[in-house]
Amino acid sequence: MTALHFAHALLPDGWAADVRIEFAGGRIAALQAGAAPGDAERHAAIALPGLANLHSHAFQRAMAGLAETAGNGPDSFWSWREAMYRFLAHVTPDHVEAFATQAYAEMLEAGFTAVGEFHYLHHAPDGRPYDDLGEMAGRVVAAAASTGISLTLLPVLYRQGGFGGQATSAAQHRFVNSPERFLALLERARAQIAALPGANVGVAPHSLRAVAPDDLAALLDAVPSGPVHIHVAEQLREVEDCLAWSGQRPVEWLLARHPVGPRWCLVHATHMTEAETQALARSQAVAGLCPITEANLGDGLFSLRAFAACGGRFGVGSDSNIRIDAAAELRLLEYGQRLAHRARNLIAPPGASSGRTLFDTALRGGAQALGRATSGLVPGAPADIVALDPTHPSLVAQAADGWLDGWIFAGDRTMVRDVWAGGRRVVEQGRHVGRTVQHRRYATALHDLLSTA
Amino acid sequence: MTALHFAHALLPDGWAADVRIEFAGGRIAALQAGAAPGDAERHAAIALPGLANLHSHAFQRAMAGLAETAGNGPDSFWSWREAMYRFLAHVTPDHVEAFATQAYAEMLEAGFTAVGEFHYLHHAPDGRPYDDLGEMAGRVVAAAASTGISLTLLPVLYRQGGFGGQATSAAQHRFVNSPERFLALLERARAQIAALPGANVGVAPHSLRAVAPDDLAALLDAVPSGPVHIHVAEQLREVEDCLAWSGQRPVEWLLARHPVGPRWCLVHATHMTEAETQALARSQAVAGLCPITEANLGDGLFSLRAFAACGGRFGVGSDSNIRIDAAAELRLLEYGQRLAHRARNLIAPPGASSGRTLFDTALRGGAQALGRATSGLVPGAPADIVALDPTHPSLVAQAADGWLDGWIFAGDRTMVRDVWAGGRRVVEQGRHVGRTVQHRRYATALHDLLSTA
Repeated sequence: MTALHFAHALLPDGWAADVRIEFAGGRIAALQAGAAPGDAERHAAIALPGLANLHSHAFQRAMAGLAETAGNGPDSFWSWREAMYRFLAHVTPDHVEAFATQAYAEMLEAGFTAVGEFHYLHHAPDGRPYDDLGEMAGRVVAAAASTGISLTLLPVLYRQGGFGGQATSAAQHRFVNSPERFLALLERARAQIAALPGANVGVAPHSLRAVAPDDLAALLDAVPSGPVHIHVAEQLREVEDCLAWSGQRPVEWLLARHPVGPRWCLVHATHMTEAETQALARSQAVAGLCPITEANLGDGLFSLRAFAACGGRFGVGSDSNIRIDAAAELRLLEYGQRLAHRARNLIAPPGASSGRTLFDTALRGGAQALGRATSGLVPGAPADIVALDPTHPSLVAQAADGWLDGWIFAGDRTMVRDVWAGGRRVVEQGRHVGRTVQHRRYATALHDLLSTA
Repeated sequence: MTALHFAHALLPDGWAADVRIEFAGGRIAALQAGAAPGDAERHAAIALPGLANLHSHAFQRAMAGLAETAGNGPDSFWSWREAMYRFLAHVTPDHVEAFATQAYAEMLEAGFTAVGEFHYLHHAPDGRPYDDLGEMAGRVVAAAASTGISLTLLPVLYRQGGFGGQATSAAQHRFVNSPERFLALLERARAQIAALPGANVGVAPHSLRAVAPDDLAALLDAVPSGPVHIHVAEQLREVEDCLAWSGQRPVEWLLARHPVGPRWCLVHATHMTEAETQALARSQAVAGLCPITEANLGDGLFSLRAFAACGGRFGVGSDSNIRIDAAAELRLLEYGQRLAHRARNLIAPPGASSGRTLFDTALRGGAQALGRATSGLVPGAPADIVALDPTHPSLVAQAADGWLDGWIFAGDRTMVRDVWAGGRRVVEQGRHVGRTVQHRRYATALHDLLSTA
């Protein structure tokens, strides 16, 4: 039994002072506000529930900053994707484990205590499965185990190179499985996470581009519960291709044909009509927004103001992992809206803080998208706590919701001081407890990859 | 004489290894690439020339995160300005010195080695001048002196509450001077910075809103050389008001009536027609872009792609200082363009790195805007050096321009390791050498202000 005592904590019904929290078995066993510290470890800190990072491609962390050179033609998501395919051509299981370990440790240092890994790199460079079909997934699981982040493993079904059954390219062969082999991979994934505390498994049909209607329907029949994540409407070209193929836009197509609801996470959903925006909000599915990556890739802006006005649910993901920072994702999400609408505080209701509104919504949406029953600091919830340093200059004169405004709008990575995930203290004084070894393995793996590429 | 030896350095003609740099009198006395370290202090680091932060209101650092709560009506720049006026109503000279010291130390920690302080808070809360007319300016000068940042002091001329000679509000009385008193303030400023290494003085007619045509013309007659900074076209309402008043848009009006050229810095210039964009680029004036503040305030996006395509000059400023981070300003500048145009690497020419292009342009533009003769690491230039940590995970596999891509697109504040400003080592291992005292003074001043406000 671990007992901690925080100066302040954000509880489901608001801020509380002198909060004593006891952990047992990776969960919050007891929680009392206005409590004496007693024998608890004392933290003069602001305790927040950890956020879920609902969309990650962990290995892409190693590409960060390697695709920022202009090509000879116009650069876009599609030219970036070619760079990503070249990068992954030589990626081995050892590389994936080193890269994912680095990425997950950074997530913990940056305020995320859970991650949804949208895992599509299944096979060897020649496209053949490894002897263990779940070899790559196992490396992701190992990275989660060693760093302590709670993992939602989302094996990706990838079947075709584009709408209407186009052939996959050679670079995509590492992603492809038959429906039968995919179900075997899923079974293997369930076994792989069985011993990992706080882990679960969902499914990720990659996109309407990459999964044909029959395959999507069969997958949903075969897996009737748990998280379903799908990339959708990230790019205008995808919308145009979908229209040419089906006469409908991607979100429209999906909502018309499947019972999209709370188990679903529609990742990006950048390009929607007003009708799609309202329908997605009504569906109670989560919009998986990845503002930093969407800006880096030039995707465009999600219609957050309209979506939130209809009660739409959302969470955030670090996607390409070019930068990993929970506060920065929420900040850029709000800033995109402010720039588009030339106004401020666009999501918060009158009198409410933008920081608190963004945080609460992303906390709930992230937990829902990852199939986690509870979020927030309550008995029974996972013992996932992010402690902010109240002496940071941007927090020192704040209180209550102002701490979230300070973190999100005026913060930097040094504000996150200590982090517990599943009851385990994984970050101390801003550094993951395994950082030295993680950095060394990461650098070695990356040098090795780039020297063979 | 200080001698340093860097593993890598960005020189005006490109990257060099094993660079030995000698300082004398705050300037670079000698510089040699491919040199043995000899008796020099060795740094296994990547040395960059420090960037100029061309637009700051230092005291606003203390408001960071305090204006992110939604009001009852729509929030905008204008409601934010009301919050700022309420905040400054009780600000004293002691507060200004503490806030500016904190802001300038953070600038140095974040890669800026020079600052243009757009200084408008001149008088006591009741609008009367202090016994020393330059009392407030002196506090800014003291903050620069104690932190080591190179200061371009830009005393602001503020004459009216809006276009067409509108009266100033009570909150604005602290900013207002007659033309005669303004020239006395300017004279005082020149004396105040005389002993400060690397400092200079320019003038800042606040905006076309706040300075009538005759006052602007008289000011430019009275001050025929040195930097001229002006806020322009930050808000659509300003454009509409200017059109109603004069029949012209703000940038159009200014370019038609004054010899806007290399001594000018047009701050924001957010809302321009294509013709204005081209004309501003041709003028060789610097566009003073403040992407983080412009996003926070919901100003809108500057037409950077079109402006840069015409050879327009720009630099970056931290403006409201809600966050202070040179790399983050350049990142958001590029990301705004990517989101607007739904494409990537929009400023860099084919084959060039976005990071390098943004950095080089902002380095030149910032130096020009602050009236600094040289920028870059060359003999005779100010000894302003920012050393990045090459072992940071986002730099460890990069080289040359990739280091700038890594810093700008995948960086965080921990990447800046050591900083020299005017030959003085002001940041060590990411921390300003005066940080402990600065933080304490800042917190004390801010608590004092908020308890009296």
